[in-house]
Amino acid sequence: MESVAIIGVGLIGGSFGLALREAGFVGPIVGVSSERSIAEGVARGAIDRGVSLEEAATSSLLYLAQPISKILEVIPKLGGAGSGTLITDAGSTKGMIAERARESKLAAQFLGGHPMAGKESRGAGAAEAGLFRGRTYFVTPREVSELDTPVAAAFVGWLRKMGANVVPISPAAHDHLVAHTSHLPQLLSTALSVTLSETLGAAARTGAGPGLMDMSRLAMSSFEIWDDILRTNGTEIVGAIEQMQRTLEQVRSRIGNDAMRDPFEIGSIFAQSLRNTRV
Amino acid sequence: MESVAIIGVGLIGGSFGLALREAGFVGPIVGVSSERSIAEGVARGAIDRGVSLEEAATSSLLYLAQPISKILEVIPKLGGAGSGTLITDAGSTKGMIAERARESKLAAQFLGGHPMAGKESRGAGAAEAGLFRGRTYFVTPREVSELDTPVAAAFVGWLRKMGANVVPISPAAHDHLVAHTSHLPQLLSTALSVTLSETLGAAARTGAGPGLMDMSRLAMSSFEIWDDILRTNGTEIVGAIEQMQRTLEQVRSRIGNDAMRDPFEIGSIFAQSLRNTRV
Repeated sequence: MESVAIIGVGLIGGSFGLALREAGFVGPIVGVSSERSIAEGVARGAIDRGVSLEEAATSSLLYLAQPISKILEVIPKLGGAGSGTLITDAGSTKGMIAERARESKLAAQFLGGHPMAGKESRGAGAAEAGLFRGRTYFVTPREVSELDTPVAAAFVGWLRKMGANVVPISPAAHDHLVAHTSHLPQLLSTALSVTLSETLGAAARTGAGPGLMDMSRLAMSSFEIWDDILRTNGTEIVGAIEQMQRTLEQVRSRIGNDAMRDPFEIGSIFAQSLRNTRV
Repeated sequence: MESVAIIGVGLIGGSFGLALREAGFVGPIVGVSSERSIAEGVARGAIDRGVSLEEAATSSLLYLAQPISKILEVIPKLGGAGSGTLITDAGSTKGMIAERARESKLAAQFLGGHPMAGKESRGAGAAEAGLFRGRTYFVTPREVSELDTPVAAAFVGWLRKMGANVVPISPAAHDHLVAHTSHLPQLLSTALSVTLSETLGAAARTGAGPGLMDMSRLAMSSFEIWDDILRTNGTEIVGAIEQMQRTLEQVRSRIGNDAMRDPFEIGSIFAQSLRNTRV
């Protein structure tokens, strides 16, 4: 892997560039982004310079770190990338992106990815070399053998040097998993906040303890980011909500009842297991 | 307010004793609790010594800091407390406790309370003088004039000296409020954890980011504490869950749809408002 192009030099793209440099990558890293993001990325040392998409396509690795809808638009335009090139992306849903890559009949290899990393601030100005360290980084081959090509193996090697916990998973299994672990929690936080806004309004503040603070934090997320996620993983998310609706109805029916002990115990064991041996 | 008895010397009762001392209270503070809790409370300086319930009833203030079910049991036994005495409690639901006090035809004045404070550790060993500082402390008179008696005014004065934000509210309005701001978030966290446990099991761990950590934290709460709360505020909690179920169904129906912008914006404004001017 001799050269890298980052398409979309924001928080994730910028952090990928910084993390590559910190891990010892010495080849050129170019960027395709808005004028402002290029300037920020160069100033931070995440990229060397801005280039056109055509020039970017000559790099060994193309790292697509835009919003999902932009990734879906740019993939069909990457026909110029040759057969030794790896195109990867950092979008939060994987099924539609993998399908778009398949349809686009690219000469280059496509391997989707999803770093489970982020922070509240956005843009290359907030980028950090350590953003992926200790975090799950999903790579989503359609076939496991796709990880064995030289350029895919090199890419995964760099992710590991960055300290990421690389987890191979199929695009469909990824989308099922994050529908439950990420998209459902987001929508519950939003729905809880809407419920309290409608029922209590400003009066909620006097009753707000640390628990409500935890449960309402995700509700501050930007719709601009979530719109793409919800549009590209709708079926799995609807399934996760329906499962949650069944559980919530069970919990409702057990209020004031000895049978409530079961969900409390199951939930407690599960929540503790998330905190014990993080894989 | 010359003397205080704390019934139930655990985290809240012990913290009340420590906070009183730190605020400058110099009268006797006695405790009614298990042998071990009395020893812990004395060692921490939260109480001077252990006494019987009969002896405790001669204090100016009786502070009931047991689990709700124990508070409901002890209130009818406080007939020995005289008319200049204030009995208060720190239970997390207020309607049934207020009703029990009314039925018990006590000579002493009863004024319920609920400090919105706590921590994960329990027992007098975890007590802190600053536990109530900067936190809402609900006092729940049936009539606002109940706050004007000398002993009630003195009690509220000490709460303020401890740094608590004293908020008067009726028992019914309190229970409606916390059903939404505390009990509903708890049950959602439990139901989310149960849903993920059933759908994903241990596989959830690789997909768990900071958002799921926030949303699953409350699920680790002890059922022993929540059993009492759910049994004594069932009607309001069912109402809050039903409201949440309606919102969640609306959210489900808007997935992949422009109309999802509204719940995201309403939820975000609400969640931010909780963090801005805390009352």
